[in-house]
Amino acid sequence: MPNNTVDVTQMPLSIEWKNAELYLLDQTLLPHETVIEKQNTVEDVWQAIKQLKVRGAPAIGIAAAYGLTVAVKNDTGLEPNDFKALVKEKAAYLDSARSTAVNLSWAMRRMVSHMEGLTSGSSAELYDVLVKEAKKIHQEDRELCAGMGKMGAPLIKDGMGIMTHCNAGALATSILGTATAPMYVGHDNGIEFKVYSNETRPLLQGARLTSWELKKAGIDVTLLTDNMAAHMMATGHIDMVIVGTDRVAANGDVANKIGTLGVAILAKYYGIPFYVACPSSTVDMETATGDDIPIEERSGDEVTVIMGKRIAAQDTQTRCPAFDVTPNELVTGIITESEIIRAPLGQGLIKFFEGKKND
Amino acid sequence: MPNNTVDVTQMPLSIEWKNAELYLLDQTLLPHETVIEKQNTVEDVWQAIKQLKVRGAPAIGIAAAYGLTVAVKNDTGLEPNDFKALVKEKAAYLDSARSTAVNLSWAMRRMVSHMEGLTSGSSAELYDVLVKEAKKIHQEDRELCAGMGKMGAPLIKDGMGIMTHCNAGALATSILGTATAPMYVGHDNGIEFKVYSNETRPLLQGARLTSWELKKAGIDVTLLTDNMAAHMMATGHIDMVIVGTDRVAANGDVANKIGTLGVAILAKYYGIPFYVACPSSTVDMETATGDDIPIEERSGDEVTVIMGKRIAAQDTQTRCPAFDVTPNELVTGIITESEIIRAPLGQGLIKFFEGKKND
Repeated sequence: MPNNTVDVTQMPLSIEWKNAELYLLDQTLLPHETVIEKQNTVEDVWQAIKQLKVRGAPAIGIAAAYGLTVAVKNDTGLEPNDFKALVKEKAAYLDSARSTAVNLSWAMRRMVSHMEGLTSGSSAELYDVLVKEAKKIHQEDRELCAGMGKMGAPLIKDGMGIMTHCNAGALATSILGTATAPMYVGHDNGIEFKVYSNETRPLLQGARLTSWELKKAGIDVTLLTDNMAAHMMATGHIDMVIVGTDRVAANGDVANKIGTLGVAILAKYYGIPFYVACPSSTVDMETATGDDIPIEERSGDEVTVIMGKRIAAQDTQTRCPAFDVTPNELVTGIITESEIIRAPLGQGLIKFFEGKKND
Repeated sequence: MPNNTVDVTQMPLSIEWKNAELYLLDQTLLPHETVIEKQNTVEDVWQAIKQLKVRGAPAIGIAAAYGLTVAVKNDTGLEPNDFKALVKEKAAYLDSARSTAVNLSWAMRRMVSHMEGLTSGSSAELYDVLVKEAKKIHQEDRELCAGMGKMGAPLIKDGMGIMTHCNAGALATSILGTATAPMYVGHDNGIEFKVYSNETRPLLQGARLTSWELKKAGIDVTLLTDNMAAHMMATGHIDMVIVGTDRVAANGDVANKIGTLGVAILAKYYGIPFYVACPSSTVDMETATGDDIPIEERSGDEVTVIMGKRIAAQDTQTRCPAFDVTPNELVTGIITESEIIRAPLGQGLIKFFEGKKND
C-alpha cells in the first residue's frame, strides 16, 4: 500500500538547534529562497518572531524557548540571582513580539518557572537547565504532532477533498504540523485525497508555505485564492476542513489566522465538517471565551504591498487584523495529540483536562 | 448639506468615443498608471476585453458595441450584403472574448439585429447606423447608472458601513457604476457612511479600482483582504452589502466575481442585507437558473503571479474560476434602474419584465 511514504528526514525544518546555536528558516523568503539564519542575539529572535520569519503557534513557542537561552548565553558570569532576573526580563521581552498565540507566553512561563524551581546552582548550570528545557519543549512538540497525525488521520478517506487555511504545517511546528499532521500520516497510510490550500492573504502562507510543503511531500494540493472557498464547497469539491489555531478559549472558541472564521461559516452552510488541530497546550483554560483573546492588528502595508509590489494607491486606508475568532458552535471537533474533542466543546475541554490530571 | 458633491466630470471614464475613434482606459495598469489606448482594430478590442483592460459587464457591452464599428470602419466599400455578413462575423468574434457577462452577447445581438432591421441603404449608411446604436447603448448606460443611484441611495443611512466586492464602479460602466451608484448619489446627498472594499483576488479590482475611484470621489473607503469580510461583519462594521453582477438568471440566481457567494453566505449568517445592483439588461430571462450560467475558468497564473510577482512555487496546481453563483435565497434585493426587486426574486423578475412590456 504505502508507495506514498513521506520521508520525514526530507521535510523542511523551521527550527534547528545545532552546536548550542539556534537556526531559523526565514519563512518570509519561501518558496523562492531557502535561507537559514543563525540567531546571534535575542533581538534577532524577537525580530524573527515579529517579522514572521518563524511563525505558527508551536514554532513560535519553540523558537522563543531557545531564544531565551540565546539571550543569556553570554551572561553566565552573573550572580545566579542577577542571572535569573535577566532571564525573566528577556522572557518578557520575547513575549512582547506577538500577542495572539498562546504558545509564546506559555513557553516563556514554562522556561522561567522551571528555572525558578531550582534554588541552587551557578548561572552556568541555570543556563544548561534552560537549554535542556527548550530541547524538551522541542521534542515534546515532535511527539504532539505525531499524536495529532495519529488521531486525525482516520478522518481522511479515499477520494476526499480537504480544505486548509494558512500554514498549520510542518513549517509552523517542529515537524509534520498540526492541521497537516493527519494529512501526512494519511498519505503515509496510502490514502488518496486532495488538499485545497487557501492562499491566505495578506502574507500568503497558504500559497508560499502550505502548497509548497505538501507538494514536496507528494500530496495532491491545489492552491486557491481565499475567495474561491465558497465556490469550491458549492461545487462539491470539499468534504472536510482542517485548520490550526493560535489559541483555543475554555469554551472552545478558536482564534486562528484571519479568514478562518469565514471558512467555518461557509463549511456550516454547506454541512461540511470543520476540524481544528492543535496540541492541548494551545488550549488556554484561563481565557474564558474568544472575546477575551487579543487580536493583533498588523501594519496596513501587508494589505497594500504584496512581496514588494504595491497593489493599491498610496494612502489607501486599510484594516489588518491578523486573526479572527471562530465561535465554538462552528467547530466539529478539536484534534489534539491524544483524542478528538467533540461538541459541546466547553464541556469536552473540561473533561479532557480533568482526564489529563488523573493520568 | 452637500459639501460632499461628487464632480462627475472628474470621474474616470473607462470608455470614450471621440472623433469617430474608440478609446479605452487600460484598467490593468490602475491605480499606478493612467493609460488611455486608442483601439485601432477589432483585435485590439477583443484583446482589451479578454485581458480585462476594459471589464465590468456594462462597460464590456459598450466597448464591444463600439468595437464592432471599429471592426468594419474600413469595409464600407463592400456590397451591403457582404458588409452585413462581415458585421455578423465580427460580432461573433467579439462575443467570444469572454463568456459569463450577459451584456457582451446582448450588445452584439442588439447591434446586429438593429442593422438587420434595415432593408435598404449603403454600407456607409449601415456603418453610421451601427455607430449611432453604439452611442445609444452608451447613453442608455449613463441613464441606467443614474437610475440605480436614485433607487439605491435611500438604502444608505448615516453611519452605515457598506461592503462591496470587486469593482462594480464607474470604471465598470459608463459612469457612476452599478453597486457604487447608490454610494455616489448617497454621498452627493450628504449622507456620511463608510465603504469596505474587498480587494478581490486574483486580479485585485477592489484594491486597484474600487478603493481608488471611491477615494477620488471623497468617499470614506477602507480596503480589506477578501478573507477579512467575516471578521468585519462579526465585529459590527458592516450594515449592508452591495455588489454588481455579470448575469442574473430568471430565478434570481446571481453570477458575479469570484468571492461574491462567500460574502453573501456570511451576510446571511450575520443577518446583513445583501443587495445586487444591475441594469435590467443584465437579467437574462433565457437563463433559467444559475446552474445554466457558464463560469469562465481563467489562467492559473492569475493565482500564482500578482502584478508580475510570483507568490507560489513553479508548477503549483491551481483553480481559477472567475465567477461564482449566489443562489437567489441569499439576495435581499436587486437594485435596477427603475425599482428594487425583492424576494421572491423569480416572481419579482417576471412581474418586473411584464410591467416593462406594458410601459
